[in-house]
Amino acid sequence: MKRHIISFVILLLAFSSSLCFAQTEQQTVKEDFKPITTNQPGKEYPMVNSEGRIRTRISAPEADTVLLDISAVKYNLTKDENGVWTGESGPQDEGFHYYQIWVDGAAVPDPNSLYYYGAMRWGSGIEIPAHDQDFYSLKNVPHGQTREIYFPSKSTNTSRRAFVYTPPGYEKDLNKKYPVLYLQHGYGENEYGWPNQGKANLIMDNLIAEGKAKPFIIVMTYGMTNDVKMGGLRNFDIKQFQTVLVDELIPYIDTNFRALADQPHRAMAGLSMGGFETKMVTLKNLGTFSSIGLFSGGSISSDDVKNTQDFKEKVKLVFVSYGGREIENMKNRPRSGPFGGDPKEDIDAISKEGINAHFYVSPKTAHEWQSWRRSLHEFAQLLFKD
Amino acid sequence: MKRHIISFVILLLAFSSSLCFAQTEQQTVKEDFKPITTNQPGKEYPMVNSEGRIRTRISAPEADTVLLDISAVKYNLTKDENGVWTGESGPQDEGFHYYQIWVDGAAVPDPNSLYYYGAMRWGSGIEIPAHDQDFYSLKNVPHGQTREIYFPSKSTNTSRRAFVYTPPGYEKDLNKKYPVLYLQHGYGENEYGWPNQGKANLIMDNLIAEGKAKPFIIVMTYGMTNDVKMGGLRNFDIKQFQTVLVDELIPYIDTNFRALADQPHRAMAGLSMGGFETKMVTLKNLGTFSSIGLFSGGSISSDDVKNTQDFKEKVKLVFVSYGGREIENMKNRPRSGPFGGDPKEDIDAISKEGINAHFYVSPKTAHEWQSWRRSLHEFAQLLFKD
Repeated sequence: MKRHIISFVILLLAFSSSLCFAQTEQQTVKEDFKPITTNQPGKEYPMVNSEGRIRTRISAPEADTVLLDISAVKYNLTKDENGVWTGESGPQDEGFHYYQIWVDGAAVPDPNSLYYYGAMRWGSGIEIPAHDQDFYSLKNVPHGQTREIYFPSKSTNTSRRAFVYTPPGYEKDLNKKYPVLYLQHGYGENEYGWPNQGKANLIMDNLIAEGKAKPFIIVMTYGMTNDVKMGGLRNFDIKQFQTVLVDELIPYIDTNFRALADQPHRAMAGLSMGGFETKMVTLKNLGTFSSIGLFSGGSISSDDVKNTQDFKEKVKLVFVSYGGREIENMKNRPRSGPFGGDPKEDIDAISKEGINAHFYVSPKTAHEWQSWRRSLHEFAQLLFKD
Repeated sequence: MKRHIISFVILLLAFSSSLCFAQTEQQTVKEDFKPITTNQPGKEYPMVNSEGRIRTRISAPEADTVLLDISAVKYNLTKDENGVWTGESGPQDEGFHYYQIWVDGAAVPDPNSLYYYGAMRWGSGIEIPAHDQDFYSLKNVPHGQTREIYFPSKSTNTSRRAFVYTPPGYEKDLNKKYPVLYLQHGYGENEYGWPNQGKANLIMDNLIAEGKAKPFIIVMTYGMTNDVKMGGLRNFDIKQFQTVLVDELIPYIDTNFRALADQPHRAMAGLSMGGFETKMVTLKNLGTFSSIGLFSGGSISSDDVKNTQDFKEKVKLVFVSYGGREIENMKNRPRSGPFGGDPKEDIDAISKEGINAHFYVSPKTAHEWQSWRRSLHEFAQLLFKD
């Protein structure tokens, strides 16, 4: 278990180190800025240009310093005669990023953006248009529903929130039952991650409309039940979350939704810390889950297969993915822990042993939501295929 | 129609004038502050004391002035040696309020609070514990679901979002059909208002658990389809929204949910501008709706009954409510428009004419969500009773 945690910390470090370049750039800024889809209704700023630079604007007439803080780099804004500050970031990767504004030393959300939960806070988020954004766009296709539910949890003595995606058609044929994917967010995020910045519902609506994925239910709940604190990952204990998920949430879903309530029709996946949770929970509960998805969150090696009883008989699908920038960082530093080299080698190895295993790399993205949206898009097309 | 709009503007003025007292107070502050339920996870501040004062705190080491801005009054915070600013507001009414922070002239959300859409922006909101908060608390009772749906709208050429509350038990007995309430937010708010700050789902879960309300479906969608701008209420046109609601959303709900799809089982209600919309839509569509709820948003007079064909035969329930502080303000200024004196007199008059009409006043609350939570709580107990 400790090896997982160490790997997770290495990943976090790798993630951080990939984010320190932009500050040194000094280029001409292309003047083709447009308002961003993650702006609040009616707001012109922030804007993005074709280079992926963010331009933001805020009125702060009495301030001395205003900064835009995105991807761990701070950019100076400049003040005009009306006290309005404007400035832009370096080019950002495609997809979703968290950011904030600093006004005279106060770190605050940009009042013009929509707010998302990540990095342990509700705060500003921004969407850089991606070349492949079509797959998570809102289109004129049949739409599923994203449902907020509260399920009883004896182990935590609370009613706990989950979001449940039911596919288009769920309300039409009331005799049909569906497979279920349990899908987890990452460290410092919560159950809003996949429905909000992850766009899980739109990804599924579009895949189903194109006939590329089987319709299935997705259940998303809070995964940091052990209340792990920043720096406290060494003490990470899966037990509390496993109890909530396996003993409380799954039985609730099986009785309150038209779920195919058996191992062949139940999958689990997660991103980053949610990937580690997925690996820990599924390998201990192969009577409950048949498919495993790890997005930027570990790998399944030959040793894992060997050390887990009935793995080959019980596991129908293994899917491991990373952002391309994460893979680049892995190449630049020695690997250790459960990966046995790199995750692609692991997947090649277990594939040769007869496991239905897939490896995917999201082009030119880091430890961020664009990698995980693409990962879900790939994984969903492989799930529940028989 | 113009009379409605003028009344609405008068209401807005009345609302504003009730909010300008706190600044002049200078009292001893009771030191029994506690963290607030609308704080972000793990945040100690903002806090509230037993007088209903808000104490907030923000780090802004290089700032010269930081203000807390709540209910249209600004309060100075003071800086400590670490650059952290702290200060408190005057006593606030029970219930939910929007607020913001000013840092050297920049109006920003408090980074410690959860965010809500109102006053035309996503921003900070705060909950003052109310003596009657039990009725909208999350309890260990059977819970319904709040579903995010997208319905096709030809008139606006978009897929439009709505939230649909389905009561506890909806997923159990798949033969049972339910009445439907269409429930609208106010000016500058959106479809998130009732599920978030309105707590419509918890109000219904609790009422149903106590056997005080019939289970019914609630549908909440965006009501400012005509994109009316601040100050542009004179040009308010109900037609676009009426088309979306009556011609597009209702048929979608009737075919995609197990709705009792007839006039006796369909109601509409709304707050403030949503009340005006409710009145305009229902009086023109009495073949579609049988029950009408206006929360801080107009009244139904004897003239309305007289001027609307078949009103007495078709309308099963009229419910009109206001916040107590709104009623106080009405007494202090001459009334005009469709009210014919005051809303209570209207309801007394139409009751005498044989209409099943109810008037409710929320004690000691203004044109705010606590008035509307209580209004829904009262209205729901009267709805669909036969």
